[in-house]
Amino acid sequence: MSLLMHTLHVDLQERSYPVYIGRDVLSDPQLLARHVSGPQVVVVSNDTVAPLYMDKLRTALGERSLLTEVILPDGEAYKTLDTLASIFDQVMAAGHNRTTTFVALGGGVVGDITGFAAACYQRGVNFVQVPTTLLAQVDSSVGGKTAVNHPMGKNMIGAFYQPRAVLIDTNSLQTLPRRELAAGLAEVIKYGLICDEPFYRWLQEQLPKLLAREEAALAEAIERSCANKAQVVAADEREGGLRAILNLGHTFGHAIETRQGYGQWLHGEAVAVGMLLAVELSARRGLVPAAEVAALRELLLAAGLPVQPPPDMSPEIFIELMGRDKKVVDGRLRLILLAALGEACIVDDVTPGELQALLT
Amino acid sequence: MSLLMHTLHVDLQERSYPVYIGRDVLSDPQLLARHVSGPQVVVVSNDTVAPLYMDKLRTALGERSLLTEVILPDGEAYKTLDTLASIFDQVMAAGHNRTTTFVALGGGVVGDITGFAAACYQRGVNFVQVPTTLLAQVDSSVGGKTAVNHPMGKNMIGAFYQPRAVLIDTNSLQTLPRRELAAGLAEVIKYGLICDEPFYRWLQEQLPKLLAREEAALAEAIERSCANKAQVVAADEREGGLRAILNLGHTFGHAIETRQGYGQWLHGEAVAVGMLLAVELSARRGLVPAAEVAALRELLLAAGLPVQPPPDMSPEIFIELMGRDKKVVDGRLRLILLAALGEACIVDDVTPGELQALLT
Repeated sequence: MSLLMHTLHVDLQERSYPVYIGRDVLSDPQLLARHVSGPQVVVVSNDTVAPLYMDKLRTALGERSLLTEVILPDGEAYKTLDTLASIFDQVMAAGHNRTTTFVALGGGVVGDITGFAAACYQRGVNFVQVPTTLLAQVDSSVGGKTAVNHPMGKNMIGAFYQPRAVLIDTNSLQTLPRRELAAGLAEVIKYGLICDEPFYRWLQEQLPKLLAREEAALAEAIERSCANKAQVVAADEREGGLRAILNLGHTFGHAIETRQGYGQWLHGEAVAVGMLLAVELSARRGLVPAAEVAALRELLLAAGLPVQPPPDMSPEIFIELMGRDKKVVDGRLRLILLAALGEACIVDDVTPGELQALLT
Repeated sequence: MSLLMHTLHVDLQERSYPVYIGRDVLSDPQLLARHVSGPQVVVVSNDTVAPLYMDKLRTALGERSLLTEVILPDGEAYKTLDTLASIFDQVMAAGHNRTTTFVALGGGVVGDITGFAAACYQRGVNFVQVPTTLLAQVDSSVGGKTAVNHPMGKNMIGAFYQPRAVLIDTNSLQTLPRRELAAGLAEVIKYGLICDEPFYRWLQEQLPKLLAREEAALAEAIERSCANKAQVVAADEREGGLRAILNLGHTFGHAIETRQGYGQWLHGEAVAVGMLLAVELSARRGLVPAAEVAALRELLLAAGLPVQPPPDMSPEIFIELMGRDKKVVDGRLRLILLAALGEACIVDDVTPGELQALLT
């Protein structure tokens, strides 16, 4: 057992589950096996992650009567209904029944599509998340949102489906490409902005350690991010209200991702630009000091994140794509802004004129 | 308001919903509109049903800011992930947001695929069932099971997703093809066999009136079927145990459907043969008198239903296909038998030898 392991609990009554965070949690001989109840397992991964971690996962699973490994091509461009169908084909051909467990081994794309597959296969089977990117560890693996993309909009087809457990092995961050580490930091910074000012101040100080991949700093950042997310999700599992604050910057960000084609910009990169726009708009409305906009820009730049939308995205294109967002209700765009640093708010009175001015 | 309308309630706490049964419920100016809360509606139907009922449904919906009609080709062969994708394409292109309501207008195929689409679109939108076949009215529209087929197995990909309301207009049975009426009666007879002996005796007497499509008899048969189903579903929404009894004859039946290719045999026809096999096996085990097997055969024949599997289906093929059933758990086939007429039981100790003898 790793001495550095921390356990969080996501509190959702009969759907509650633990999140294990630490070095080598994947090497613990009991941890994963305890949450995989039957003899049948489907591991879904991608061709980047599988060569690095599949052996370790296989060892952690122990003896199984039926183990099927589904290896997807790497990238957001494959988070589609077609890929989902190919997962079902392989799982059906191998003969998995409804006692099987789907394990997602990879980043956000693998987690989202595997979770959705688990939600639908035989109307729902067990599901365990083993996220290997920082973004998946602090964001998509906790909270039960699963989905695939539609060519006309991100995450448009999916389900709320909670995992039985989340295993976050911080070791996996040592092999993560620099660009993906930065993308994950965008979501980490988000938690500070929306609900945890002390954490935001800590991040401003500790960023160099995180970029240097210091184990203790990374574990701390992941734990505080997951704790913040777990709290929001426990209060509003199906996004009736509060949960929407987790989408700070995402309406702008999704527009960028949809426009550029999935996979050109990483999700965290698009969110970074989107958060800066949302905080800029908050400042224009007098909600946060203008100095915080400059400070956030500096933090994002230091993390290696973009701070400008793609040059060819006109305000008109932005506004049209944002109109397709899932948060549009009866023609009104709902946006997440900051009421103060460390406190998000949801507004539905942003005018096209304000957006035009912001995006010009 | 129709004087003949009856209302049942499916009791599932916050997911409870009414089932309206009667002549002209679709002509009631408030009934449907009351359960379609927002201004956006997607109606999914097929090219057989839409020409008969779409006008009526449009009138019942009243003014809507966005109404999209998705017309599928008729038949079980189209209950696929590909068809599901085409629904999402049309709904996305029309610009529906998460306040939209999906309405299923048609038989079991339309209801199952529309319900699954509603479960997944933007992670879940409102859903109303308007079943137009007897089979859908007494079976698939109530209870929240939604799915599409996989080439290797029926209903393998789906969700538990409850509608907001079910509107059963008994008028629609007047235009239903004879063969589909019979297929629906198979499921009606099932309720008598598994949990309602008085209803079974009533059916033995009233069958001629049902076949003559007498309004009062049909309404009674539908109401008692739905009441039985609602009770079972309320006790076990996600099929942890009891709900499985609704699958009397279905493991044999699904094997026939899978083998013959979806749509060659109607679902109710395959279930009729399957029920007879299950009751025959119950009699061989001494659970019900052999005379009841003969009586059931007579009832099914009188209803115009098949009582023999396809001639080219060997016991070996049956057993292999039944092994893929969702009710197979850790290699053990669970079958629904009758402990007595009007009382189902679940067994997991049927031997290959017994099946071989039964199917030979």
